[in-house]
Amino acid sequence: MAEELSFPTGIGTSDPTTISLLGKDLATDLMGSVGFGELAYWLVAGRRPTAGEVRVFETVLVALADHGFTPTAIAARLTYLSAPEALQGALAAGLLGGGSRFLGVTEDSGRFLADTLAEAGEVTDYDALALEAVTRARRERRLVPGLGHPVHKDQDPRTPVLIRIAEEEGLRGPHLRLFEAIGRVHPQVLGRTLPLNGAGVCGAALADLGLPIDLLRGFALLARAAGLLGHLAEERRRPLGMDIYRTVDRNAVYEP
Amino acid sequence: MAEELSFPTGIGTSDPTTISLLGKDLATDLMGSVGFGELAYWLVAGRRPTAGEVRVFETVLVALADHGFTPTAIAARLTYLSAPEALQGALAAGLLGGGSRFLGVTEDSGRFLADTLAEAGEVTDYDALALEAVTRARRERRLVPGLGHPVHKDQDPRTPVLIRIAEEEGLRGPHLRLFEAIGRVHPQVLGRTLPLNGAGVCGAALADLGLPIDLLRGFALLARAAGLLGHLAEERRRPLGMDIYRTVDRNAVYEP
Amino acid sequence: MAEELSFPTGIGTSDPTTISLLGKDLATDLMGSVGFGELAYWLVAGRRPTAGEVRVFETVLVALADHGFTPTAIAARLTYLSAPEALQGALAAGLLGGGSRFLGVTEDSGRFLADTLAEAGEVTDYDALALEAVTRARRERRLVPGLGHPVHKDQDPRTPVLIRIAEEEGLRGPHLRLFEAIGRVHPQVLGRTLPLNGAGVCGAALADLGLPIDLLRGFALLARAAGLLGHLAEERRRPLGMDIYRTVDRNAVYEP
Amino acid sequence: MAEELSFPTGIGTSDPTTISLLGKDLATDLMGSVGFGELAYWLVAGRRPTAGEVRVFETVLVALADHGFTPTAIAARLTYLSAPEALQGALAAGLLGGGSRFLGVTEDSGRFLADTLAEAGEVTDYDALALEAVTRARRERRLVPGLGHPVHKDQDPRTPVLIRIAEEEGLRGPHLRLFEAIGRVHPQVLGRTLPLNGAGVCGAALADLGLPIDLLRGFALLARAAGLLGHLAEERRRPLGMDIYRTVDRNAVYEP
Repeated sequence: MAEELSFPTGIGTSDPTTISLLGKDLATDLMGSVGFGELAYWLVAGRRPTAGEVRVFETVLVALADHGFTPTAIAARLTYLSAPEALQGALAAGLLGGGSRFLGVTEDSGRFLADTLAEAGEVTDYDALALEAVTRARRERRLVPGLGHPVHKDQDPRTPVLIRIAEEEGLRGPHLRLFEAIGRVHPQVLGRTLPLNGAGVCGAALADLGLPIDLLRGFALLARAAGLLGHLAEERRRPLGMDIYRTVDRNAVYEP
Repeated sequence: MAEELSFPTGIGTSDPTTISLLGKDLATDLMGSVGFGELAYWLVAGRRPTAGEVRVFETVLVALADHGFTPTAIAARLTYLSAPEALQGALAAGLLGGGSRFLGVTEDSGRFLADTLAEAGEVTDYDALALEAVTRARRERRLVPGLGHPVHKDQDPRTPVLIRIAEEEGLRGPHLRLFEAIGRVHPQVLGRTLPLNGAGVCGAALADLGLPIDLLRGFALLARAAGLLGHLAEERRRPLGMDIYRTVDRNAVYEP
Repeated sequence: MAEELSFPTGIGTSDPTTISLLGKDLATDLMGSVGFGELAYWLVAGRRPTAGEVRVFETVLVALADHGFTPTAIAARLTYLSAPEALQGALAAGLLGGGSRFLGVTEDSGRFLADTLAEAGEVTDYDALALEAVTRARRERRLVPGLGHPVHKDQDPRTPVLIRIAEEEGLRGPHLRLFEAIGRVHPQVLGRTLPLNGAGVCGAALADLGLPIDLLRGFALLARAAGLLGHLAEERRRPLGMDIYRTVDRNAVYEP
Repeated sequence: MAEELSFPTGIGTSDPTTISLLGKDLATDLMGSVGFGELAYWLVAGRRPTAGEVRVFETVLVALADHGFTPTAIAARLTYLSAPEALQGALAAGLLGGGSRFLGVTEDSGRFLADTLAEAGEVTDYDALALEAVTRARRERRLVPGLGHPVHKDQDPRTPVLIRIAEEEGLRGPHLRLFEAIGRVHPQVLGRTLPLNGAGVCGAALADLGLPIDLLRGFALLARAAGLLGHLAEERRRPLGMDIYRTVDRNAVYEP
């Protein structure tokens, strides 16, 4: 069967003498001139970010890169133990834990804030809007994403720092403002004070950068890829996977 | 069973008020002060890189981020088509193609150069060493990694640019010098002139940065994660996966 | 820190002389006596299936094992092309497409039927219940999972065969009956006749086997693992991945 | 660009009224008539197995399905903890551990035996051949795959059972015979007696079934997919992932 095939893309193409990326010449226009975080932003947003946007964006990636022995870091280390010849498999196994419970909060927060703002139209009073959103979430028995943390019960140290940096760069926009307002008003609805967590503030900041909400999880995954490489590098130098495996296996108890 | 458990790590730990990463306070010492590429380098190398090292390193990541409709980009897009609700799965599927044939060249080149240098001891004549290494590889019917490219048959545009940037930063070390020497001498052994490819020069540059050879593939994967996010963002805006699938499926012919 | 650790499991344990699986001695009680499909059922359901249950279950696995050049099969072949040394990566990449759009229908159908039955209590008239469920789905603008197929527009050949086999084994229970009723009544609601598809009937049959609804996707994945191994075996003997990749890459057109 | 595309396959094709698999009509010829293990064998080998071959093959799959809290089972459980909405990701994460150290032994053993037999030509004395192979491996400082087990230090209970079943079915061929001979002669070379392990005997049996050596790992993965589904089903009913994660995280100690 003969057919006219055409696969359009704005990402990358190449011919014998040039490689294009985002419509630019990779070798002459991008290499050495564009940072890696800047390129990641550009690839997803489809536009080159400003210096201030890059700073906020890289701060988010740094904030999300690692959080110690998370389930994803442990899964990556155990996979490396079993198949050290395929580093890509260990990294992929770690990233596959980037779902709803752990890394998903970044995207969930961004979506919650974006949906609330979209419904509200022009906002004049963030506290009032936050109060309404938290009240409705409670009525519908839904959690407010970005509120609370299993370890940082009073304050997540990442939150005020990211807000300050966004402010410095003129990028403390409606999503961050609404998020902060949620931090102020939720105690009167929920009856207790929860911290604004780091994943949540990152989601708010990414949404203020105009990045597509459906892909916010992708940035958490990119950040975590760096953290996982750190764990795998350490696992190679000073292995823990066998100890973790044995700790579980030796304490296995048969129970039907 | 009671046991003393201890899982040592130099990556990250946290307590209710602080998050530590690499022995630093994430919120006060790293966020806003350290770039994302810089952090990735630090996580793997276990030491903070200099500004020049960061520039070369990010140039490598930019060089490796994408190469158009590679098998890995297509696999990621098809996986997103099938399971759009799990972005982490599409990204992981793309990274799983980061093996010996495509992304592996970066690591293979770094290893070939590092092994050759390790055997040689102190090097005074890179061309003589390159000649010996290429001659031996040919005798043992092994390919010299980093030589040749299916598309860029004369020159890979990334190669001279990365060498120049490394030179500018004082980081054109023995691996890059040996790689360049291979580019000069191989025609007299192989009887034809092949280009030094981009993956190969990236492997040489990463090796000159002192990064662990066994993990060079990891940096190619990190770079590619950004490129894959670009493809997935485009797939979301302007889907191609269904067309690719149908192109294959409609032209299937049964043959036992 | 000393702690009492205990990880209970009913799956498998071992000591120097025996391996236990599901509370049985693997070597003496299971090997040679239990089929592989039977074991998979047992592992998930936590009880040994009857011979009739095994026949229906294996028929479902056979029905779902392959459907030609699906996106998942193509993704697996492309990953094998890139990383042939890590078969596990190619298989995993294929399975990662087992999400909502393609393989997910099995689970979605089972859940739709189970939820409808749970709300209804005792059922005397499947057609009436089906009519109500389809009417409600339409009103809520939700699709009825298991209805319609992009290729098999009139009838999916798997559907009547699976129903017949379930009937032969005395396992045509409420989920299958409700599914058949949906097939009878939906035209009067939707205004056109759609086929009951293979994934849907498999979901109904698995639900009638008493398997946990949340894990029905798991059986589709197990079945597909066999199909993917078939594709990878063929890819090894008669490779297509490079042709597929080139078909896409050569027809790439830059469009911002 | 117009081109003639043709993607030949002997696996599966479909048209509006039929689904073909392996050149048979899926609905009328395979569903209800062919077991799942039988189909998996057929898909990879490209020929329908005999009843005896199916019995040995399914015994291998049963033998390899699970081995308790392996690193792969733990990785799957932790991934399910993080992303319970994407079962395919948890299964894939578990399978990604199917590499050289754990599941790879099946394939390595098959390859070692097949290579030894291929070099030897017609074999009359398996013990002599085994002695030569073990002696050479020791001289080259290579391990003999299939010898030794971290838990089953004297005998792996799976080994004699699988040999007996292969014998019963007339399928105790040259690979199994050579493997048994290795079990007899290795003490005189290595100076100590190691058990023939389960993964090794499975590799020998699969090789005697004429299955392609390069894909033996694939069968270990298929078997393990069932075991992993068992773990994930248990994790859903009686979760352990959070306990495992906390056991590691709470005992983390910062060490540069």
